[in-house]
Amino acid sequence: MSHTLGQLAHRVKGVVKGNADLVINKLGTLENAMHNELSFLANPKYQHQLASTSAGAVLVKDDELAQLVDNAIVVDNPYLAFAQLTNIFVPVTQGWTGVHQSAVVSDSAQIAHNAVIGPNTAVDDNAIIGEECVIGAGCVIGRGVVLGKGTYLYPNVTLYHGVHLGEDCIIHSNAVIGADGFGFAPVQGRWEKIHQLGAVVLGNQVEIGASTTIDRGAIENTQIGHGVKIDNQVQIAHNVIIGDNTAIAGGAMIAGSTRIGAHCTISGGVGIAGHLTLADQVHITAMTMISHSILEPGSYSSGMGMEPTSKWRRTVARVRRIDDMAKQFIQLKQQINKLLEKVDTK
Amino acid sequence: MSHTLGQLAHRVKGVVKGNADLVINKLGTLENAMHNELSFLANPKYQHQLASTSAGAVLVKDDELAQLVDNAIVVDNPYLAFAQLTNIFVPVTQGWTGVHQSAVVSDSAQIAHNAVIGPNTAVDDNAIIGEECVIGAGCVIGRGVVLGKGTYLYPNVTLYHGVHLGEDCIIHSNAVIGADGFGFAPVQGRWEKIHQLGAVVLGNQVEIGASTTIDRGAIENTQIGHGVKIDNQVQIAHNVIIGDNTAIAGGAMIAGSTRIGAHCTISGGVGIAGHLTLADQVHITAMTMISHSILEPGSYSSGMGMEPTSKWRRTVARVRRIDDMAKQFIQLKQQINKLLEKVDTK
Amino acid sequence: MSHTLGQLAHRVKGVVKGNADLVINKLGTLENAMHNELSFLANPKYQHQLASTSAGAVLVKDDELAQLVDNAIVVDNPYLAFAQLTNIFVPVTQGWTGVHQSAVVSDSAQIAHNAVIGPNTAVDDNAIIGEECVIGAGCVIGRGVVLGKGTYLYPNVTLYHGVHLGEDCIIHSNAVIGADGFGFAPVQGRWEKIHQLGAVVLGNQVEIGASTTIDRGAIENTQIGHGVKIDNQVQIAHNVIIGDNTAIAGGAMIAGSTRIGAHCTISGGVGIAGHLTLADQVHITAMTMISHSILEPGSYSSGMGMEPTSKWRRTVARVRRIDDMAKQFIQLKQQINKLLEKVDTK
Repeated sequence: MSHTLGQLAHRVKGVVKGNADLVINKLGTLENAMHNELSFLANPKYQHQLASTSAGAVLVKDDELAQLVDNAIVVDNPYLAFAQLTNIFVPVTQGWTGVHQSAVVSDSAQIAHNAVIGPNTAVDDNAIIGEECVIGAGCVIGRGVVLGKGTYLYPNVTLYHGVHLGEDCIIHSNAVIGADGFGFAPVQGRWEKIHQLGAVVLGNQVEIGASTTIDRGAIENTQIGHGVKIDNQVQIAHNVIIGDNTAIAGGAMIAGSTRIGAHCTISGGVGIAGHLTLADQVHITAMTMISHSILEPGSYSSGMGMEPTSKWRRTVARVRRIDDMAKQFIQLKQQINKLLEKVDTK
Repeated sequence: MSHTLGQLAHRVKGVVKGNADLVINKLGTLENAMHNELSFLANPKYQHQLASTSAGAVLVKDDELAQLVDNAIVVDNPYLAFAQLTNIFVPVTQGWTGVHQSAVVSDSAQIAHNAVIGPNTAVDDNAIIGEECVIGAGCVIGRGVVLGKGTYLYPNVTLYHGVHLGEDCIIHSNAVIGADGFGFAPVQGRWEKIHQLGAVVLGNQVEIGASTTIDRGAIENTQIGHGVKIDNQVQIAHNVIIGDNTAIAGGAMIAGSTRIGAHCTISGGVGIAGHLTLADQVHITAMTMISHSILEPGSYSSGMGMEPTSKWRRTVARVRRIDDMAKQFIQLKQQINKLLEKVDTK
Repeated sequence: MSHTLGQLAHRVKGVVKGNADLVINKLGTLENAMHNELSFLANPKYQHQLASTSAGAVLVKDDELAQLVDNAIVVDNPYLAFAQLTNIFVPVTQGWTGVHQSAVVSDSAQIAHNAVIGPNTAVDDNAIIGEECVIGAGCVIGRGVVLGKGTYLYPNVTLYHGVHLGEDCIIHSNAVIGADGFGFAPVQGRWEKIHQLGAVVLGNQVEIGASTTIDRGAIENTQIGHGVKIDNQVQIAHNVIIGDNTAIAGGAMIAGSTRIGAHCTISGGVGIAGHLTLADQVHITAMTMISHSILEPGSYSSGMGMEPTSKWRRTVARVRRIDDMAKQFIQLKQQINKLLEKVDTK
């Protein structure tokens, strides 16, 4: 995985300042990169690190910054260029090739000639695995599942029957797509199961984090748009619809039948109630509870940051009595108004 | 999976209005159902959709509503009837039958003659798998585990040694039942493990969601009552006891040794501290923190809904100073009282 | 698993009061232990149970307490002694020995002579499995993974390529270590993947709970110190660094590049934002949001406990208007000051 600085610059449509023949074999941080490593400066607040870095070269956004180091690639968007270059430094992540002999593949499944199916993976009836798909070890691919071209499953992923994944998706380990939505009808103190008859459909270029769960729809499908990125430990309930390129961070919980627009960002630990609508370009900060629809783009919050416990306890005690305080406050205003009258009339 | 309207009405003890011979091959929503699909009206606020639906027939609760569509099944509780009918429209979800040749089953395990054990599943010593059980691919059934009749495990479920499941349970993929509770004794700045010697016991008709974890007890057992329904990504710590027919939504976290009553509902993202008692029929709204026992039935909350971030920041800044405000408020009251005295005595 | 009281006392360096030959075959609670069971009194508030317990013997901290029961082991720290004794009452948890014939092990992997590898587990190229390691069924061990001596993996654990685990670690089922961090560069409304090139390194004696996820670093490694204990359903993002002996409870979410000190305790449901620093000996109470660095040891909170829903709704309505209230409050103070002047000057 060695490349010259010139080759890397070519990849990202950048211009080399310095030695284009410098061999780069790794990416590194400004703080710790060594002389055969390429680093990047994306955030101006780290500019002072250019003086002290041992990196062989740095991705920077203009010539002025390039002059602060021996070798540089000048490029409009160094962070994007860095992202693009990470791709070529990925090591081989799995050693398996072809369909492993320990895999159990139904006779009725269709496996593309160049797909990889890892050890101990099971592929059930009528599943269709597209070209260049890679399925890690220990996965279970349910009946009639469809994987679009180039989709990559890490080990131990479970896809229930009828789930459709688009092209170039990445699904991390222990994600579960297509489990039953949480639907029950109450009857005389117990719960009658509503069998979940819909499926889950993912667009292209979707990434799903480890241990994330996306439930199948009750009647119709749960739908995840193109380019959606979902982090680890996220729960997407039945019949949720998520618009293109929305990103959802770790531990977010989205209840049933909610529609989230395109280009939204949902931060970690957010909870969104069911049957709501969120417009496009809505941004939710961490640990916020969304209990109403949001029809205007913008940023929304209800997470409250920490204080020392002893101070926080006093705050909570006051908050609990805020209704009393507000009522007394109204009385006080009345008293003052009366006082003002009295004083003025005296 | 085709049935006549008359057959379906018979199932739910309903009465056909219209064509009892109409063939129904699917359930659908009022909005999108086609002419060979059966829909339902459970919530009066959707009644206007009866006029425009293309559904072949609709489950409704009285004759008056039935007259608004061509074909209907009249039944006391249309939502319950719909739930009951979902059962007969479930497709075959797994193609495996019998004990798959790739499954690893200990000689000392007892497998009922009609149980299904999927590919690459491992069943350890002395496990007992009841009649009509279905175990998906990639599951691991620990030593001495007992599965009651008709219990269904989706793929990649892990049951640790000694876990007992009742009859007709459904366990979704990647659920882990019986992992060690989080128990350590502090000693000189490090943690001494308390090996967890209890087990987990589930009643009958329990459903456990994908990626949900239920820890084994420290000394005695963690216990989940009959008919309990638990959604995805839920954590049940060691020695928790949950009463019959309680339902727990996604992402709820229940700390150790807490007892939850019967017929409770715990919403998504709720956290319940350890060693508490919750009475029967307690209902907790989303993202609430339960830090004290609840001895009276009723609804409890502490989740706070979102506001636009800029407004929320002002709110938080004020809340942090509420203790000061309350103290100044008391001074103000004293000043006003003095003023009142002065003015009155003048 | 039978031992005499004398043998158990010897293990924990305690002194027997009563019958040292009493056979103990189980540990039990004071409430429910039987006559061949050993219990313990750690919390003085349960001292009254000594009078009524049927336990054969009890671990207590002094002679005075020992006199309240027939048989006792007197030891400085009964809770620690109990923790130490749990170890010898653990049953055989898995029946598999050696490398199971259904396991798929790469020729280039190095497996210690006495390691156990369960059924249907896959070990990829160049992995190194240390002495006395036990790997449960259905695990996937990625390329180049290293497991230190005595490390124990429960079933269905996934370790991505390049992950290093220290000695005597315990990893519970469905934990995923080394999945990609959630890193993307925004570009024209879509997300460009930043391939994650770092790994995850765990120290010795680390315990990781079921369904917990620890992401690999973007460029450098995610690092978990010695003796760290992490509960179930926890998310540790890329490049997080956690100091020795810190404990993290269920459902906590820690965002990227945050450094947590040693000897911290993070309670359940806590969220910690990215790029923060937490000092040693910081303690966070349940469901707190950490949005700033914490440089002083101590306890920090922002979780708010529940109230009856109707009261809580009034509280929330008032909190939403607290900014108005505070502004009016300032006006009121001004009015009162004017009144005071007027009254005083009259």
